[in-house]
Formats: sequence, C-alpha cells, structure tokens
Amino acid sequence: MNLSGIIGYPITPFHDNGQGINFNKLKTILDTLLEAEVDAIAALGSAGEAAYLSQSEWENVANYTVKYIAGRVPVVIGIAELTTEQALKRAKYAHDIGANAIMLSPFSYYPLNEDEIFTHFKRVSDETPLPIMIYNNPATCKVDMSPEFMLHMVESIPHATMIKESTGDIQRMHKIYELSNGTVPFFNGCNHLALDALVAGAAGWCTAAPCLIANKPKQLYEAVKANDNNKARALFYQQYNFLEFIVKSGLAAAIKSGYALQGFDVGEPRKPLLPLNEEAQAKLKGMLLNLTIIN
Amino acid sequence: MNLSGIIGYPITPFHDNGQGINFNKLKTILDTLLEAEVDAIAALGSAGEAAYLSQSEWENVANYTVKYIAGRVPVVIGIAELTTEQALKRAKYAHDIGANAIMLSPFSYYPLNEDEIFTHFKRVSDETPLPIMIYNNPATCKVDMSPEFMLHMVESIPHATMIKESTGDIQRMHKIYELSNGTVPFFNGCNHLALDALVAGAAGWCTAAPCLIANKPKQLYEAVKANDNNKARALFYQQYNFLEFIVKSGLAAAIKSGYALQGFDVGEPRKPLLPLNEEAQAKLKGMLLNLTIIN
Amino acid sequence: MNLSGIIGYPITPFHDNGQGINFNKLKTILDTLLEAEVDAIAALGSAGEAAYLSQSEWENVANYTVKYIAGRVPVVIGIAELTTEQALKRAKYAHDIGANAIMLSPFSYYPLNEDEIFTHFKRVSDETPLPIMIYNNPATCKVDMSPEFMLHMVESIPHATMIKESTGDIQRMHKIYELSNGTVPFFNGCNHLALDALVAGAAGWCTAAPCLIANKPKQLYEAVKANDNNKARALFYQQYNFLEFIVKSGLAAAIKSGYALQGFDVGEPRKPLLPLNEEAQAKLKGMLLNLTIIN
Amino acid sequence: MNLSGIIGYPITPFHDNGQGINFNKLKTILDTLLEAEVDAIAALGSAGEAAYLSQSEWENVANYTVKYIAGRVPVVIGIAELTTEQALKRAKYAHDIGANAIMLSPFSYYPLNEDEIFTHFKRVSDETPLPIMIYNNPATCKVDMSPEFMLHMVESIPHATMIKESTGDIQRMHKIYELSNGTVPFFNGCNHLALDALVAGAAGWCTAAPCLIANKPKQLYEAVKANDNNKARALFYQQYNFLEFIVKSGLAAAIKSGYALQGFDVGEPRKPLLPLNEEAQAKLKGMLLNLTIIN
Repeated sequence: MNLSGIIGYPITPFHDNGQGINFNKLKTILDTLLEAEVDAIAALGSAGEAAYLSQSEWENVANYTVKYIAGRVPVVIGIAELTTEQALKRAKYAHDIGANAIMLSPFSYYPLNEDEIFTHFKRVSDETPLPIMIYNNPATCKVDMSPEFMLHMVESIPHATMIKESTGDIQRMHKIYELSNGTVPFFNGCNHLALDALVAGAAGWCTAAPCLIANKPKQLYEAVKANDNNKARALFYQQYNFLEFIVKSGLAAAIKSGYALQGFDVGEPRKPLLPLNEEAQAKLKGMLLNLTIIN
Repeated sequence: MNLSGIIGYPITPFHDNGQGINFNKLKTILDTLLEAEVDAIAALGSAGEAAYLSQSEWENVANYTVKYIAGRVPVVIGIAELTTEQALKRAKYAHDIGANAIMLSPFSYYPLNEDEIFTHFKRVSDETPLPIMIYNNPATCKVDMSPEFMLHMVESIPHATMIKESTGDIQRMHKIYELSNGTVPFFNGCNHLALDALVAGAAGWCTAAPCLIANKPKQLYEAVKANDNNKARALFYQQYNFLEFIVKSGLAAAIKSGYALQGFDVGEPRKPLLPLNEEAQAKLKGMLLNLTIIN
Repeated sequence: MNLSGIIGYPITPFHDNGQGINFNKLKTILDTLLEAEVDAIAALGSAGEAAYLSQSEWENVANYTVKYIAGRVPVVIGIAELTTEQALKRAKYAHDIGANAIMLSPFSYYPLNEDEIFTHFKRVSDETPLPIMIYNNPATCKVDMSPEFMLHMVESIPHATMIKESTGDIQRMHKIYELSNGTVPFFNGCNHLALDALVAGAAGWCTAAPCLIANKPKQLYEAVKANDNNKARALFYQQYNFLEFIVKSGLAAAIKSGYALQGFDVGEPRKPLLPLNEEAQAKLKGMLLNLTIIN
Repeated sequence: MNLSGIIGYPITPFHDNGQGINFNKLKTILDTLLEAEVDAIAALGSAGEAAYLSQSEWENVANYTVKYIAGRVPVVIGIAELTTEQALKRAKYAHDIGANAIMLSPFSYYPLNEDEIFTHFKRVSDETPLPIMIYNNPATCKVDMSPEFMLHMVESIPHATMIKESTGDIQRMHKIYELSNGTVPFFNGCNHLALDALVAGAAGWCTAAPCLIANKPKQLYEAVKANDNNKARALFYQQYNFLEFIVKSGLAAAIKSGYALQGFDVGEPRKPLLPLNEEAQAKLKGMLLNLTIIN
C-alpha cells in the first residue's frame, strides 16, 4: 500500500439524542468523501471525535468504515489512547477487520518523554503488521515529537513508515525531508498549510475539508503535482479562509455545522464540545457561499 | 466542610503485573498521609494516575479511600473526564459513596472554549450537591482557565466554591485574591510555588509530597501561618529541589520511585508511563538523603 | 556599600518641546523619592528612558543625580548599551562622577549567546572598580539570562556582585537563592511580584512606584521584614493593581501621567513612546484615588 | 521602482582594530552581490550591523553604497532607530544621497503599541518621498506587527507600499496575500522559508546568502517563477542547512566567517558580538564544501 494524495477524514454522526452512532449518516459521509476523489480514508481521527467514543462505538465505526469502503481506497484507522494497553487492543482490532494502516499518536495526561513514546510505538509495532503513520499533533494529543525523533522511530521501529505532521510548522517538514533525503513519506495535517507542505515535498494532505468542499483539495493537490504554481496558488487562497476556519473552530463542530448548512443534519458533537455558535455559523455560511458550495 | 492546610494526594499502587489495584498498599499509602498530618486527602488526582484507570478501578479507589479514611479528614475526589457524560457519572458516584467534595477539571482532546467549560461545570453542579473545587492544570488537562473565568464560574455555578491553581504562575493567585477581595478560597497545586502561594493568601497546598517527606509540607504551612518568615523560608528552600523534582519528573513516577527508595515497593506507573530512569532515581535518592528521609 | 530595601527609579523630565532635560523638574522628582524613604536611587533605568537619550543627555542626568543626592543614599547608574565600547564609556563615566554602583544589562539587536554576554560583563568589570548589579530584563533588553548563568558571572567576574531579576518569574529567584545558599543578593525588578520576591529572600525591590505612591512600597518592605504577613499582604493587594498597571503600560509613560494627575507636569515620554491614552489615564486616576494619593 | 527577486544584503567590514569601516572591502562585498545576480541591494540591515554603527559610520556606509552601485540595481537603506527623531534624520539622509527606498523597522526598548508604531511610520512618510518597506523582524527589533496592522499602514500611510516579513511564520504571508488580494508586495526575510514564501506569492527574498553562495538563491527564485517545482525543491534543500545556519548563528558573524573560509578576511563583528566559535566554523565549512563553494 502506497499512501499519497488526499486522505479524507469523516466525522462521526450521532443519533439525535447524542447516544450511539448513526450509521446511515456515516454511510452518506463516506460517500461524500469518495465523491470528493479522496485517495484514502482515515477513520477515527480528531474530526471523527474518536476521543469521545466508547470502546464499542469506536470499534463499530472502524469496522463499518472498512466494510463499507471495501477496498475502493485504502482505509487508515486513527489510534490515540492514554494507555499502551488500550492502544494495543485498538491496533489489533484494526488489523483484524482488515484496515490498511493505522495512524498512531501518543495521547497524554502526563507529559511523555521520548523513552515513553518510543516504547509505546514499539509495542504497537510488535503486535500488529499494519504500517504505522506516526502522528504528531500536540494541539490535541499534547505531546510534541521532533522531526529528528520521529525519523529515529521510522529507522528503529519496523512498521513505523510514515509521518503525519500537524503542528503547522513548515520547518518540521523541511527537516523531515532534508534529514531523510526525501525518503520518508510525510503528510500534512494542518489544513491552511497545504500549499506550502505539498511544495515542500509532502506525500499527501490529511483533511476533513472534502466533507464540505468536495474535490477542491484534490484540485489543489493536482495543481501542485502538475507544476502549475499559479493555479495552485489561486486554488489555495480561494480555500484559505475556510481551511483556517475549520482548524481554529474545531474540526468536528465546524464540519458538522457545514453539513447542516448544506441541508444534511448530522447532529451535534459530543459534550463538552458544543456546536458552532451563531456568529461562527454565519461566518462559515459566508465562506461556503463564496466557494459556491451553497447558494 | 472548610478545606484548608495540606491536601495530601495518594498515588495508586498496582499489582505486580500492572493489573488491578493493590488495596493493601493503598491502605499503607493513606496511612503515610495521615501520619504526615495532612488536613484532607484528595484521591484520584494526577498523582493517582486517575487518567489511566478503568472506570471500575476508578470507582474502587474512590470508594476504598472514603471508607478507609472514614471521616478522619475530608476526602476530595478528582474528576477529569473527556466527556461530560462520564464526568457526571463520576460525580454522582463520589456523592453516593460519601466523599466530601470533588475536584473538577476539564480534560480535553479538542481545545475547549469558555462556553464549553462553563456548561460542563454547570451540568456537574446541577447533578450533585458536593462542593466543587475548580481545578486548573493546563500541563496535564490541556485547558487553561483564567482567574477571571474561574471566578465567574464561582459566582454563577452554585456548588463551584473553591479553586485549585496549578499553572505555577503566582500572578494568577494574586488575581484571584485581588478580584475576589480574598473571599474565594484557592489552593496551590504547584509544589515549588508553595511558599509564595501561602504568603499570597492560598487557603492550602495540594501536594503528593507528604507521601515521601512526611510532615515537612505541614511544617512549612504552619510556619507561614505563624508569621515566621525566616523559618518558612528555611523550610521551603530545604524542600525546594525535591518539590521541583517531583513536579518535573511526573508525580506518579517520582513518588513511586521514592517509596521504593524507602523500602516500600508500590510497583510502576501504568504504561506508557515509565518509572524514573537510573539517573533520576539517583538524584531523588540524594534529595531524600539530604532531607534525612532515608539514610 | 550594602544595597537593600527600596531602590527608587526616577523618570527623566524633558523640556516642553521634548528637547533636552529639565533639571529643575528632575530635582523635584529626586526629592519625591527621598521623601518616599527609598534606600537608594537608580538613575537611567527603563523608567528614566535611558535608551532614548543622547550620550550627553545621559551623562548629564547621571552627573546631576549623583551631585544632587550627594551621598544621602547610594546612587546606582543603569547601563544598557548595544556595543561593549559604549558600555565601557558609560561605566567609566559613572565611576568618574562618583556613583556607587552600576546596573549593567546587555541590550541587544542580535540575540547574544552566553559567551558574548560574559565577555561584555567581564570587559566592564575589568575597566571599573564599581560593583555591578547584573540586570536581567528580557522584556526590554531582549536577552534572557538564566539564574545559573548569572550566578556563574557572579563567581567569575570580580565586580559582579548582585543580581536584579525582572522577568517576573518567581522560580528564578528561588533558583538564585537556593543555588547560592542565600549568599548572592538579588533584587526584584517586577513590581507586582514584590510580596513574593521579598518573602522568597530578595534583598530589595527596584521600583519607580515611589515616584507616585510615596512610601507605600517601603511600608510593604518593612512589613515583610517585621514578619507581619497579614499587614504585608494587605499592603501588597492595596497597591497590586497600580503596580501591575505601571509595568504593563510602560513605566515612563505611566509615571509621567501619574505626576500630571498629581498636578506636576513633567512632559511626555520621547517618541515613538506616547503618553497614556485617555482610557489608561482614567484607569490610573481611579487607582491613585483608591490609594488616596489624589482626591 | 518595482522591487522583486533577490534583494542582497551586504555585511559591513571594519578595519582590523574594529574601528571604522573598510570601504575597500565593502566594495568587494558589493561586487560579490552583483555577481550573484541580485535584483537590488539593501544596505544597513541586520547583516550590515547597522545597530552597532555610529551615526557617521552609518551615513558613510549608506552614501558609499549608493554611489558605488550607481543605479545598476535599486538600493534600499535599512532604518531601525530607537527614537523617531533619529529615524527621521536617517530617512532624510537616505533620500538626500539618492537611495531608491527605505526599509523601516521599529526598534524598541519599551514594547511599542500600534499607535506608537503607526505614528512613527507616519512621521517618516511625511518627511520623505521615498517608498517605505515596512519591516517586521521581532527577533531583532523586538516589535511584532501583525499582517492586519501592516496592511492598515499600507492603506493609510502614503509611502508605505511594501512589507518585509521576517518572523518565519508562513501564515503571516498567507494573510498578507489573502487580505490584500495579492496586491501588496511582500518580501521574505527568513532565509530557510524561501521556497514556501515564493510559492505563497512573495515578490522577493531579502537575503545575505548571496554574499557566500553566489547565485544559488537567484536560481531558486527563478525555478519557482518558471513553475519548476522539482528543480526549486532540489535547489532549496541543497541550500537548506546553510540558510538555516546563517539565520540561527547570526547573519553578521556567519557571513563574516564564511568570507574568511573563502580566503577573504573581512574582520570580526563588533563587540559584544563574537565571531563564530570553532565548532560553528567547522560546520559552516562543511556546508560550503557540500555546496562546492569552497573545496
């Protein structure tokens, strides 16, 4: 499996009372992503509110996604657990159901040192043959891994083969590229850094944006690949405010509001998360109008 | 119930294989705290690895602690859950078993805004009559609440009556004192800020230090109350390196290593947390020798 | 000379057109400080707009201050120059006119490393017998020196004997005290940290506050020395908003506005610095009313 | 005058005793830049140690540069003064000698608010007809101007027409481009951000790198303009370590050491700045060898 391009992130729709997963709606959301020409799907990332699901909900979402996608594109399963034991359990489950890769992040209460993180990743790699995308997102997972340390894990941990960098610091990507001589694939996880990351050598872009703005992210990816910088720049700045907005508002709340603005009610995020307030919804509406996604 | 003085934090000892709670050892640890003359006990804080326990383990620790202390000092139960639903469940449980107060912290994956935090605290207050200590510890819980916002919650949420400030920024305490005219009790949660916090008006000091250094924290508290600044300063600087060390090394790992150095094997913290490495253990040993805790 | 207690900082009054120093007014300001019972005077600090003076203006202010104070209290001269050559020139001048000490800070355009800072201080110490107060104030001088490094300079550079810490981080003071076993005198340069610093062992408090609020800072200093923590706390919180305000508004602008509110027109700070805007002036007025400095 | 492309920054060579400017050597340095195909020259920037020159030295360097370049490329003069009065004096001088533009930065001791910065820029614009490049470099000038504020100045201050952004935060450039709809020319001042900045729409790249690595920066600029992303990426990563190194080591010290490694002794930077230490020199030598600049 060779991941590249647009990795689409579904959100997780709950039933109206906030209890349980609405799989009918999840199906529609996965369809949205496929129609947006994503090159892979990553279930149970931040956008999917994975941290707020019970273990059985998490397993059901993972299983449903793999079964429904059924090989049309690769499926990556996100794992960000507080204990190594839980992470192992999830990784084995992902393998059992036939996922193509896992995206593994250390989620922390206590700050973790590099020995602790390394051991965590090593244990998961020892227990599952799935390729591991090392995921660095201190804004949610509260652990910040340097490019040097992540490359060290890629060298030392058999199944750790890819990196997803979400700090938004383009210099991290420069370092990954330069230190590995361009040999370690890395993915951009900060939406409003997409243009820069792709030009700097990112293999792809992990994003929930296609949930709402269709294949515009894919178009940007292709413009960069086609060496058409003017087109890429135009596409990027067209999406820029939207991309920044969904990151800063919280992906789950923003994408759920955006679906509602398009007439598809996918419910609210799980408490304590709240839906976008009215002012933010109005802003988002303006952006979707500008992008001619709604009218 | 009027909390003040030293609030002692037990760690959670696991069985040798890392599975399940060792209640015999927990009993000894609670005895250590009582012998150290703590004025209250706060179970299931950071030191207690609450974030790494299963729900039933968490409940059993809470229940055991309340039953064993049996009113000798007040018992506060820490609650730091990712979802409001889980926090409510834990708060009701704490009330059911007869705890005296809860220490409530927003624990986050997505950054939370003030509306989200407020709603979370309000819901808990609506569901339980226990007094709530608002707990601000961004280093672990990843949410930073300003003094102004916490005082707003104290004014607006019936059972939110106290604040625990763990940022280590003494100006936060100045603000709490000044803005509330000294009427809202606040507690220091940053060990190596204890002298400053108590002089600045803190009602007490939340600390796991008495697990290892007996009543030295209590002596410091009493020296400040007795207006003996020279004695207070001497006691503070005597403990200073130790207090800073346990914070910077991670309370659970440091306290567990310290017990081992005193001949009491309480096992390791739960993975991905690792025990102190040899260098850190040697440092801790030196500090305990200096404090004549071991010889 | 043994510095301790309140080190008062005069501002520098210009003539009405902003050109040249108004020495008549400087005399009145120095009198204010003496009446406020300061234990020493530090000319040409931040409050004195030293960075905005020509070399001859700087020399004239230094000379006037030393001559007018005439030994009634020690006079410290602040030196914060971009080049070592200029710093040497100023240090020699301070010695020539009979100042008692210099307060030396690295002022930087390029960030300076420890070798560069050390060499700068060493050169000055080699050229003048005056005691040197090492002054750490990254908010203005843009160089941040750790407690460990400053203590290293105290050990290695003959005339470097004291430290002024203005970061506002109380842990820096704890470190200085603990690492030097209380033997190296340090001064607090962050007004709204005064209570904590003095209790933590500071030898004194460097402040422009006495320009406006008379001997209230001295009273706080004495309450701490007298071990009267309740009185010290009351005095501190009474002044707290004012102390924070003058730091956050910029000392020169705030003190000049405060004098004007008391009926003493000392002109404006030098451009690009602007006087306090109306809202800030109203705030300051409210604080001086509360402190019964004006009515 | 329409600035774009590579704006080259000369360093300032002193005589062997550190006193006075060595104009013979300055001539050679300017020749280096012209041979490196720079599109403009900016004298008296950070690289030129402008902050460490006396007023007459500063004027002589400005004058010499304009006269020697003699219109072959535009000459921009950097101005970063602590007082508005000094900035005005320098701006008038730049105009008098025939410079093409000024690059104006607020250099601060006290932090400056936006009113203070605006007034500073407005006054300079009122006094000279030269186009002003607003220069944001908080790492040296200690004032951080937001994209929104700089664009506000471009709209409101007649001669303020361009922006140089040196924070290294690519999002600032995205904002400038997006908010101005691509109409306000901005320049990259962070060497190791060059690829990203140019792709994101920067009009040019302000850099001292051509002093040492000839037309490699120009080649990178042209590859981006030619839409050859693979070539641009290859050129960027080839230079990357060098570009990061000269920024992190301090431009003046690094460029001066680099010239020495090429057999051209331009002396040391001015104290307190020190030359690169041996370890750093060895690193730089390795980089220049890799780039086949030396052998």
